[in-house]
Amino acid sequence: MKHIVKNTIIQYNLIEKDDNIIIGVSGGHDSMTLLYVLMDLSSSINFKIHVAHVNHGVRGEDADEDEKYVKKVCSDFNIPFYSKKVNMDEYAKKYKLTKEEAGREIRYSFFREILNRFKKGKIAVAHNKNDQAETLIMRFIRGTGIDGLRGMEYKNGDIIRPLLDVGREEIEKYCEENNIEPRIDRTNFETIYGRNKVRLELIPYIVENFNLGIIDTLSRTSKIMKNDSDFLISYTKKCYEDIVIMEDELSIHINNEKFLKLHNAIRNRVLRYSLEKINGNLQGIEEKHIKDIIKLANSKTTGKLINISNNIIVRKNYNNLIVEKNAIRERISYNYKVGINTVTLIEELDAKIEAKILPVSLIDLNFSNRFIKYFDYDKLSDNIYIRNRKNGDRFTPMGMNGSKKLKDFFIDEKIPKEYRDIIPIIEHDGDIMWIVGYRISEKYKITSNTKNVLVLKYINT
Amino acid sequence: MKHIVKNTIIQYNLIEKDDNIIIGVSGGHDSMTLLYVLMDLSSSINFKIHVAHVNHGVRGEDADEDEKYVKKVCSDFNIPFYSKKVNMDEYAKKYKLTKEEAGREIRYSFFREILNRFKKGKIAVAHNKNDQAETLIMRFIRGTGIDGLRGMEYKNGDIIRPLLDVGREEIEKYCEENNIEPRIDRTNFETIYGRNKVRLELIPYIVENFNLGIIDTLSRTSKIMKNDSDFLISYTKKCYEDIVIMEDELSIHINNEKFLKLHNAIRNRVLRYSLEKINGNLQGIEEKHIKDIIKLANSKTTGKLINISNNIIVRKNYNNLIVEKNAIRERISYNYKVGINTVTLIEELDAKIEAKILPVSLIDLNFSNRFIKYFDYDKLSDNIYIRNRKNGDRFTPMGMNGSKKLKDFFIDEKIPKEYRDIIPIIEHDGDIMWIVGYRISEKYKITSNTKNVLVLKYINT
Repeated sequence: MKHIVKNTIIQYNLIEKDDNIIIGVSGGHDSMTLLYVLMDLSSSINFKIHVAHVNHGVRGEDADEDEKYVKKVCSDFNIPFYSKKVNMDEYAKKYKLTKEEAGREIRYSFFREILNRFKKGKIAVAHNKNDQAETLIMRFIRGTGIDGLRGMEYKNGDIIRPLLDVGREEIEKYCEENNIEPRIDRTNFETIYGRNKVRLELIPYIVENFNLGIIDTLSRTSKIMKNDSDFLISYTKKCYEDIVIMEDELSIHINNEKFLKLHNAIRNRVLRYSLEKINGNLQGIEEKHIKDIIKLANSKTTGKLINISNNIIVRKNYNNLIVEKNAIRERISYNYKVGINTVTLIEELDAKIEAKILPVSLIDLNFSNRFIKYFDYDKLSDNIYIRNRKNGDRFTPMGMNGSKKLKDFFIDEKIPKEYRDIIPIIEHDGDIMWIVGYRISEKYKITSNTKNVLVLKYINT
Repeated sequence: MKHIVKNTIIQYNLIEKDDNIIIGVSGGHDSMTLLYVLMDLSSSINFKIHVAHVNHGVRGEDADEDEKYVKKVCSDFNIPFYSKKVNMDEYAKKYKLTKEEAGREIRYSFFREILNRFKKGKIAVAHNKNDQAETLIMRFIRGTGIDGLRGMEYKNGDIIRPLLDVGREEIEKYCEENNIEPRIDRTNFETIYGRNKVRLELIPYIVENFNLGIIDTLSRTSKIMKNDSDFLISYTKKCYEDIVIMEDELSIHINNEKFLKLHNAIRNRVLRYSLEKINGNLQGIEEKHIKDIIKLANSKTTGKLINISNNIIVRKNYNNLIVEKNAIRERISYNYKVGINTVTLIEELDAKIEAKILPVSLIDLNFSNRFIKYFDYDKLSDNIYIRNRKNGDRFTPMGMNGSKKLKDFFIDEKIPKEYRDIIPIIEHDGDIMWIVGYRISEKYKITSNTKNVLVLKYINT
């Protein structure tokens, strides 16, 4: 047991030296085992254990006995013990949640409250291999893709699951061998529905009729899925970066031509990723929305809107597919001096700009993109600003001789009106050097005489 | 029904104009429905139907009655009817197969036998949406990844499944409405195991307790999985092409450095793909083999062997990871004149070489790779040969002034002895122009004076 858990912790980098580990301990088999195993490992890895217990107040005296029991164990081992008594039923009613949802919300917010007192640490919960198998079965039956069949994560933000490679039988054996007497009797289930039905009926049926080792099988499945899913997620992000032209809190502009060239599977994922960014989550986003958007992207029409829930709309404008919050965009105005050899924050855009000066010999001029540009620093001073457009702005676009009204440039580039205020302009002594994301000025471009290069990098955060 | 099936046929491009469609018809609900629906669609899409019936000889008189029944229907509608009587039990015994495997083998080989009489066509089988759901459940329970949960394919080589979007209930309703009286009573099952157990026990249990729409849910799951899986398969092939240095029937040489840079998920897939190519299939390839090979790739050791079943070994040599058949490599010898503006086959290597002459203005000189090279045609004639090495071969590698023994070049490039006979050499008038996959000669490289370019493209088939 100790060996398996230690392996899990190392393989998935769950616990680091000096971590404060908040263990949620109900008093049942799983959490008691987690407590004992982590106590056993805490000296070799060198982390500190804290125990958090939530008294849900639904089993009356029993619940109070559970709390006393966990408290006693902690005091025996000299472990900090925190507890909280909440009426789960009332909480569920108040926030219109199921009991299970309410319980989860109460527990995790209490755990996080404790975690926040420390500089560095994680919340450890006691889900085991059987729980994972149950999760996979439930998701499979409800319907899910590869990202659902990853199952629960070993590590998800500040939550870790060190027992995910340990089966329920091993946990029970461990409790017996170590004279741990968990408070909660597993067989005492009042209702049989959902997860319990999977645990007590469906899995035993599968074990008897199809696959003795179903728990291990599904544990392997979860790992295989996780592997492919991880790749798909990271590849999707890469493609997203490649095809997004402009992005802020309220909207994402996607190059439609590039979007349509993506593989079907990645196209769907990029779209979901964009919708999730603007919407905050994927709630209310349905298969039908995705299909409609793909249809819009393929169509020749422009100006058509697709309404997604929560005030999100998707529309096509010129060659862009635009995902945006249907909120009124406030007119924003900003003007910051760009610090040299440092990073300047542009709060209004949730973005920053980095400026560096380097000798031309150190620059790979082939490596530039829409957000990284090079300028001839010998023609510039430190008097550089980032701001939004002003009336009367003029500009000498790269490749042109004379200057041009910025407004005309925006029209020629087919930039929608509502975005023209947001696009960052880099100016030097009142002269426009760069329209970020679009074009640099002819005047400051790198030539064969350039000795020192100003590298500007615009970063959406 | 007709509408759904037509949509499936169009969406997945199952049937083309003038196809000969061999329908396997047992006389049961599914295949009778398939027959009737395809008859209904045959005039609008314009294809020809043939019916194939296998009398498995296991149900005695009943089986003969089935055959008579299907034959009668075909004669009524003037459809070519082919039948074959085989004793499935004997066949199973003889080839050590389960009855199901034997049945499948007999049926498909008979269908293909008929298909081969025609220029153009496909075999249509009657798997429906419920069959698909059963397949997904069985695979999920046995353990599988995303590629398993794609389920059965709409189109797989010459086999098509036009009923895959139609549920069993709809099929039964269709039979009733169209006065089709299938011969086989679904409820008459002698044994309950495997697929039948899933169909008759597990799915009804899930429907009753968890998800009324489980069949549709799993049909959607299969499509989602197929989508991601298709992308992963095509991306894997692309990566494979990028990192393979040399490939023939007996071995694949992989650039180990590039291999290690791939995402974990893709690395595993590239490895399986390579093993499948050399082994013919993935039988006997286990998770453990993959892990061992990754370990070998990561290690500093050279010369170590990993034995995979079926005489396949994987080893590391210099900077390559080599997957190869542990067979004795025959000394091969070949010499072909390279045809200009055509493709020349090199049978011994299962490869071909394409030669084209183009004016330099039409060439993108940046686009070359290890197997596509450009030469100054003004310094050459049509007297070009592809052959394996000969004693005494000398060569002037690109970037060098003097010439060098080919043998020394092989040693410097760390090419294992056993491969030196296979590497194709391109010569002109006895002088080496290109060591395919490695280096071109200094003598025929493109210069600023080049007017006409010989493009050579070597293709492993």
